[in-house]
Order: sequence, then structure tokens, then C-alpha cells
Amino acid sequence: MRARDMIAAGTPVIELTIGEHDIRTDPRILDEMHRRAKAGHTGYASVPGTKALRDAVAARVTARTGVPTTRDNVVVTPGGQAGLFAAHTAVLDPGDTGLFIDPYYTTYPGTVRGVGAKPRAIKARPRHGFQPQAADIAAQADGARSLLINSPNNPTGVVYTPETMQSIARTCADHDLWLVSDEVYDTQIWNGTHLSAWQLEETRNRTLVVNSMSKSFAMTGSRIGWILGPEHVIAHLIDLSTHTTYGVPGYIQDAALFALQAGEQLEADIAAPFRRRRAMAVELLAHTNAAKSAPCDGAMYLMLDIRATGLSGEGFANRLLDQERIAVMPGESFGEAAAGHVRVAMTVADEMFAEALGRIIHFAEALTPRGP
Amino acid sequence: MRARDMIAAGTPVIELTIGEHDIRTDPRILDEMHRRAKAGHTGYASVPGTKALRDAVAARVTARTGVPTTRDNVVVTPGGQAGLFAAHTAVLDPGDTGLFIDPYYTTYPGTVRGVGAKPRAIKARPRHGFQPQAADIAAQADGARSLLINSPNNPTGVVYTPETMQSIARTCADHDLWLVSDEVYDTQIWNGTHLSAWQLEETRNRTLVVNSMSKSFAMTGSRIGWILGPEHVIAHLIDLSTHTTYGVPGYIQDAALFALQAGEQLEADIAAPFRRRRAMAVELLAHTNAAKSAPCDGAMYLMLDIRATGLSGEGFANRLLDQERIAVMPGESFGEAAAGHVRVAMTVADEMFAEALGRIIHFAEALTPRGP
Repeated sequence: MRARDMIAAGTPVIELTIGEHDIRTDPRILDEMHRRAKAGHTGYASVPGTKALRDAVAARVTARTGVPTTRDNVVVTPGGQAGLFAAHTAVLDPGDTGLFIDPYYTTYPGTVRGVGAKPRAIKARPRHGFQPQAADIAAQADGARSLLINSPNNPTGVVYTPETMQSIARTCADHDLWLVSDEVYDTQIWNGTHLSAWQLEETRNRTLVVNSMSKSFAMTGSRIGWILGPEHVIAHLIDLSTHTTYGVPGYIQDAALFALQAGEQLEADIAAPFRRRRAMAVELLAHTNAAKSAPCDGAMYLMLDIRATGLSGEGFANRLLDQERIAVMPGESFGEAAAGHVRVAMTVADEMFAEALGRIIHFAEALTPRGP
Repeated sequence: MRARDMIAAGTPVIELTIGEHDIRTDPRILDEMHRRAKAGHTGYASVPGTKALRDAVAARVTARTGVPTTRDNVVVTPGGQAGLFAAHTAVLDPGDTGLFIDPYYTTYPGTVRGVGAKPRAIKARPRHGFQPQAADIAAQADGARSLLINSPNNPTGVVYTPETMQSIARTCADHDLWLVSDEVYDTQIWNGTHLSAWQLEETRNRTLVVNSMSKSFAMTGSRIGWILGPEHVIAHLIDLSTHTTYGVPGYIQDAALFALQAGEQLEADIAAPFRRRRAMAVELLAHTNAAKSAPCDGAMYLMLDIRATGLSGEGFANRLLDQERIAVMPGESFGEAAAGHVRVAMTVADEMFAEALGRIIHFAEALTPRGP
């Protein structure tokens, strides 16, 4: 907010706060959207999603996970956030408790509250590389009915290991929890393996995976995503859609279908800038102890540990803004577990990103007492 | 459903069941949408709606109602149904009771249930021209917290009189009810005066008006609408939007703005076919007692009383489909109050409409015993 005010007042600020690509939606996708709209797909579209799009999503999921998936496992939603809300409506009754992992994306606790339930945070700690621990989940599971996870993770850039995912599944099975898995960054993996919650056989009958076209195809503003889940739950979610949204514009569904069918190259092209910038960041951060990144294996973000400076994330972010005119998000704005950290979004052009990160490192080093 | 099966099996059926225009969205609106998307309005849009669109909606409301209205009274939603859901989320807590008027649009009771509340129907009876009666609302108001109304009405085609609207306002004030007013057909008035709930001063601080671009601009598939209400409630609804939908595509908002600014002629053009067909229907129905229309003062529908035939609405609709290959909706599918009626949608081309209605009248007459 302070950064926005400074920009509005004419002070140039490099914003490393934005969770969105620095490119726009591919014009080929927009042209297809227009073509389909002009061809007449402007009336009420099928509320669950068009068969063609649900088939394409199912085929994509089958190809990526190896799990046989059909259109009956898929409901199209107006974006990932609408998917998160619908998923929690499905698995929580008013008064229930829904678990989520701290640090967290801003809307998570409000989404649980939005369905009349109580959010309860479980810390994923820096010393565990922000991987949630089964024992911590189990310790908070009493009376809870769902667990919301997000890997690749916003804000940390961490990808949950297969071992983490399996221990989460086991814990959900043991404690009778629904697993809601936000996988909107699943095309942005820089290192290691992303295991989808859909691949966890033990919990597949109690799992809803939320995904969208936003991050994978730079279609954030088009508000189109989907929920993947057991057929009987998807059938209920379709009923719910009739009453909450009445579906997604047909021409946007057609554009999404076109994008999904354009093949993996388009997705790779959209992910490429973040892959490049992440490689730059690894290089720049290799030679300092003043700012250490959490394992940056996915998504558009770096979570920098700046505790060596003696400042809080908020204190660091405020001073960085005042002195360097660079805006980052304090870790504290994502809960308690990322205190003493700042989130750096890799969503500005390469050269500006490298320059800004270099200055952040220099700034942190100047604040850090020398070791013995 | 039976009609759709017959059509799928190759039997030609005239469908007078569809609540949607027989035209598509105006290509000028779609071209503007494309132009704005290509110009880059494809990222996250402002969640409450763009200032320009909220200003335009506010200006339209001010012009139509005479009530000074600003953007702070407006939140943009992904369609009217999303507006109904959000409005009920705002005014009902889980376990509360929400009132609605029977006959009703299909989603109404499920919308109330969708927010964890209990729907309770209040009959608007044929003998009152389907105008809800204050005494009937008062009799059901005990323990209720909201009342959902819809004028011009689907399914009856009735427009609530100013007296009805005022008596509703008084009843809501007396019984501490929120008034949720679905006014999506407010550009389709064929006779008399449409008073918006926003014009009822007594209840304006407890009123949410839901509207959309669907019926007024033939943009059903674009899923864009808005809620109008007191500033403090709209502020809460904006918070809710952040968690349920995260806004509406920017290029669709821009297209809606273009349409609203195109002036009243565009709206009049879109309403014109229904105005023509309604005039035809009045003419055709003038000379029969076998099928009598409820006062058809607005919207796209006729509600025909066919009780003189001795059949139920469902019996009549089934026989009409079998014998005449004409599909209409039984009144019973909209609740209990329209039993012995059928809903005829005026959503096919003029000539086909006139022919079909003529055959319906003939069919009803053949079933009706002659008077003495």
C-alpha cells in the first residue's frame, strides 16, 4: 500500500510484490475467444463446463498424473479462487474447522470463514524448509474436517516433496480430513518433482484439487479454473455452481480449450521468464549469508530469510522501500511462520529483477553484523 | 427434458421453454470486448468492478430511479445468479430463514439453502394476479430475516404494482426483513410502471437489488451483473467477492460499459421482439376462455391458466408435447402457486411463436367442456 502511494505521488518504485506475470494473455488465445463469441457462443453455457473443456482437462490430468480421469471428475469454475470457495463449501459445514498451512495466500482464512467455518493455521517452519510436518497437522486435527495445502507454494516458492505429500495423505486418512489441494502453480517447477494430491491413492476419494488457467497460461483476468475430485462430489459441486455462478462464459471456455490444446510449448513459454529469473537469483544469492532463500523450487516467488539483519520482515520491507525504492512483501503478511522473511515476486523484466535483487542483497549485507 | 429427448431422437419440437433471447450478443459489444482484451485488459481486474463500470451502473440507476447513487453502492458480480448468492450470504446466517415468493425461478430455494439457511415459500396466487400480498408475507415472517422478490417476474410475466412494492416495503420494515430484489427483467416492461425496490425509501437501508446484463443486453453467457445496496453492505460484499470469485474479467466489464453507454436504443432493440410477441399474444388470447394469461406486463413469459381444461399444468404440458410437439413448462415446476398453469416463453421467432400459441389455444379449447 505504501509503495502504491509513493508511485501515485510520482516516486519511482520497483514493485516485487505482484503475483502476476509481466506479460499479457497470448493474442492467439484472445483471437480464438473472439472467434467463438462471434460464432455465437454467447448464450448460457453448460453450467458444469462444456464437455469439450472438461474432456480436455481430464486428458491433461491423466497425462500429467497417470491417474485415469474423466470429465465426471471435473467441474469448471470462474477461476481458482471460486474453486477454493466451492471446494470448502462442499467439505465444510457451518461451524466446522478447516485447516490451512501458514505461511498462506491471503484469501485462505477468509475462504474458510466465507463458508461459515473456522480457519485454523498450521505452521510450516523455515527450519523445515517450509514443508508441513505430519506431526504438526495431527496435533491440530482434532475436530477439523479439511486441510488446505498449496504446492508449488505461494508465498514461499517451495514445492512439497513426495514424502511430504505422502505424509499429508496418511495424516488426512488417519484423521478423517478432506484434502483440498491448490495446485495453480503446477506448471512452474524449477527443481525436483511435483506430486499432485490426485496421485495419492490413499486419499483420492477425499481429495479436491483446485487448478486454473491463470498462472499456467497467463489468463489471470479471464477467471477460469476447475476442481478435480471424486465423481459424487463433483456432481454436488455442479449443483452448487447452478446456485453460485451459473457457469463460466462459453467463449472463455473455448479459449481455455484452445490454450490447453496448443500443447506444452505454450505453457513452457509462459513459465520460461520465471525459470530464467529463478536461475539468476540462485546465482546472486549463492555468495551471501545476509539473505538466504527458502528452497526456490517452484512458482513465481522467492522467500528470503533476512533474520541475520536483526530486522523483522516488516521492518526490512519498510526500510528497503524508503532507502532503495524497492517494494517486497513482509513475510508477516502471510501469517506467523514466515516472520523475519520477505517475499520477492519474480514478476518484473529480467534486467530490472537482477538489479533489484542485487540491491536487496547489498542492503541486507549492510545491515548484517559481521561474523567473528 | 422429455422435449430435449424427442429433439435428440429427431422429432421436431417447438420449444417454448427457454428463458433466453433468440438472438446472440450484439457483435459491436463483442468487438469492443476483443479490442479491450487485445489492448491488455487481461490481468486481474479490480475485484469490486472497475471504477468506470461501477460509475456507469450508478449513473444508470440514478437516471432510472431518481435515487442519487454512487459507485460505493455498486459491486460487480459474475452474473445475476452470483449476485443472488452473494446477497443472501450477506443477509442470512446459517440456520436463518429466507423467504421467497412462489411461483419462483428454479434456483431460488437452492440459493437460500446454499448459504446454509432455510427457504420458506410465500404463495402469490392466481386470484391476486400473482401479486404477493402483505398479509401472506407477514404470516410467514416470524423468524425470517430476508425476503426475495422478482419483478418483472419469471415465471409469471407479472410486474408488481407500486402498491404491491410499497406494501412489501412496509412489511419488511415491520418484520425487520432484508429485501433482496431480483430486477434482471427491468428493461422489459410492456404495461404499467416498474418501481424498483431501490425507490422504496422506507427500506433502502435494508435492500439489495440484483441486476445483470443478461436479459437487458442479451449477454446471458457473459456472466456479468451487479448488486446495488447501502454502502456498508456493499463494502462487505466486496470483501466477500475477494473470497468467492476474485472479480469479473476486465474485458467483459469493458464490454458491459460499452453496452451501457450505447444508450437506451440498444436496450429497446433487444426488448422489441418480446414486446411484439406479447402484443400478438394479447390479441390471440382475447377470444378464448380455455387459456387465460396472467397480466403479462413484463419479461419474456406468459403464464397461461389452463384450469378450464380440467388438466394440471403438467398433464397439459405432457399432452401438448405428445400431440402438438410443442414444449411448455408446467406451472407446477415453479412451485405450488402456479398449479393448473403453463409458462410459455416468447423466445422463438414471431411467426413460429404466433403459430405455436394459436395451436396451444386450439388444443386447450378442444379439451375444455362447453359452457351451458
